[in-house]
Amino acid sequence: MKKIFGVDLGGTTVKMGLFDENGEVIEKWEIITRKEEGGKLILPDIAGSIKSKMAEKSIAKEDVIGVGIGVPGPVDGKGVVYKCVNLGWGVFSVKDTLSELLDGIRVEAGNDANVAALGEMWKGGGQGHSNMVAVTLGTGVGGGIIIDGKILTGCTGAGGEIGHIHVRDGETDSCGCGNKGCLEQYASATGVNRLTRRRLAKDNKPSSLRGKDINAKVVWDAVKEGDELAIEVAEEFGEYLGKGLASVAGVVNPEVFVIGGGVSKAGDILIKYMKPHYESNVFHGSRDCKFALATLGNDAGIFGAAKLVIE
Amino acid sequence: MKKIFGVDLGGTTVKMGLFDENGEVIEKWEIITRKEEGGKLILPDIAGSIKSKMAEKSIAKEDVIGVGIGVPGPVDGKGVVYKCVNLGWGVFSVKDTLSELLDGIRVEAGNDANVAALGEMWKGGGQGHSNMVAVTLGTGVGGGIIIDGKILTGCTGAGGEIGHIHVRDGETDSCGCGNKGCLEQYASATGVNRLTRRRLAKDNKPSSLRGKDINAKVVWDAVKEGDELAIEVAEEFGEYLGKGLASVAGVVNPEVFVIGGGVSKAGDILIKYMKPHYESNVFHGSRDCKFALATLGNDAGIFGAAKLVIE
Repeated sequence: MKKIFGVDLGGTTVKMGLFDENGEVIEKWEIITRKEEGGKLILPDIAGSIKSKMAEKSIAKEDVIGVGIGVPGPVDGKGVVYKCVNLGWGVFSVKDTLSELLDGIRVEAGNDANVAALGEMWKGGGQGHSNMVAVTLGTGVGGGIIIDGKILTGCTGAGGEIGHIHVRDGETDSCGCGNKGCLEQYASATGVNRLTRRRLAKDNKPSSLRGKDINAKVVWDAVKEGDELAIEVAEEFGEYLGKGLASVAGVVNPEVFVIGGGVSKAGDILIKYMKPHYESNVFHGSRDCKFALATLGNDAGIFGAAKLVIE
Repeated sequence: MKKIFGVDLGGTTVKMGLFDENGEVIEKWEIITRKEEGGKLILPDIAGSIKSKMAEKSIAKEDVIGVGIGVPGPVDGKGVVYKCVNLGWGVFSVKDTLSELLDGIRVEAGNDANVAALGEMWKGGGQGHSNMVAVTLGTGVGGGIIIDGKILTGCTGAGGEIGHIHVRDGETDSCGCGNKGCLEQYASATGVNRLTRRRLAKDNKPSSLRGKDINAKVVWDAVKEGDELAIEVAEEFGEYLGKGLASVAGVVNPEVFVIGGGVSKAGDILIKYMKPHYESNVFHGSRDCKFALATLGNDAGIFGAAKLVIE
């Protein structure tokens, strides 16, 4: 059976997976991301690791359908990356460079968030759907949009950057992007901290959160225990997330939103607080859209990368 | 040279165009939309008109590449319409029904706003681009999204319904869709009236608009004449439109927005008032997006419909 390699290039480690053509994982491993010298060691390291694995498993070049790779920066439809600040990379074709290092094996490249979305569609929370929006609630808020089974890349690779949709008028803090009132300012891990900090400062309402180190897990745990102040935070979180996803649905009318990332570990309760606000802000044609949780966790990237080379 | 028919089905008239395979218009005409009997006369009327034109011009069936049609309701990727309230239509395949009436000539169908967007991409304000958002500022606010040269239909045909993106917190009036704070409530013809009426009622500031019948043209004319109150209205209009389009860009990252519809007849001045608000709300990856005015007017529909059958 033919083989595929899926590569998820992160700022610290490169996750790699060997798949058969049905998408079954044969093996997973990681290598270190060597960022020195402007990141020019990274692709040769990846190619070297793939070649070693091929030798180890006696996989001939002809038996490799291709190598897919997700990278942490904007990538256009032709596999050209437009700067990865984290890696020290400028503008060049990841697709062509890596293919050359692999003696001509076919390579396809995409943005890591988009590629992870593709993975969730293929083997995760979005299985059975081909029009889907993946939402990652982590350190920031990322997104990946899949239309008819393909990534919506956008003209400069900024398709699906839904963390920077405006959801709140009158915000005084600035987002990392420079704007004010972005979804990411409320629905990310730091966003939950911001909402909690503000709520705690507002008055002296008792709460189990007072005096604690605040993070998303602590807040959601308090919500589950019925802490009233934490519930107010969850309501506000749900309002901004619901409003933001309603805007996204108004544009692309997906079948399903698949929600992942650290903040989503709270589970279905997050959807419970978000959904009423989604419904009251969304165009009726998208009101029945489904919501699911991501299921692949950190493996979404290697699955999606493998899917890049399968039609 | 082979021929194509483009049909733009409206609530009052059906606009029709005969095109050559290069997209040059050979002839345009209209027939009445007969809505009686639940709209069941409409497609036979259209088929009859096409057959008459073929006979008149001695066009053989083999010389017709196909017939494209835009209809005023949600249409899925397979040419099935999900209710056209205006026409009395329920759910059925426009594509198959019209093709049967035309003795098997190929038919493709789409939503009218999406099809008009395709027309503007092909021969109008979006020429040269394949990733584009068309924005129609008319009685309502409509949209059509083109990704890689194809219409983004959405899973229930509600893709590109950008008029119902939330752009204002705290709105008290309800939009036609039932929500509050939709872009359409400010950026449509009635939206301009709403903003003007509210501004006039706020205080006694003198304005040439006082005592006049308000419509979008009157307001934009006053803006051009330097009327301070009208300029305040234009600023607010620009804020909501800019914010809404920034959200759209955050999702699909288009190369260009093409703005049309009655309200856009004001011309470039509309873009001037919108753009600063777009820029201050959009993710930086989409900040350099272009803005253009639609150029095909009422013909966008027949052009886009023709394009539906050309690869």
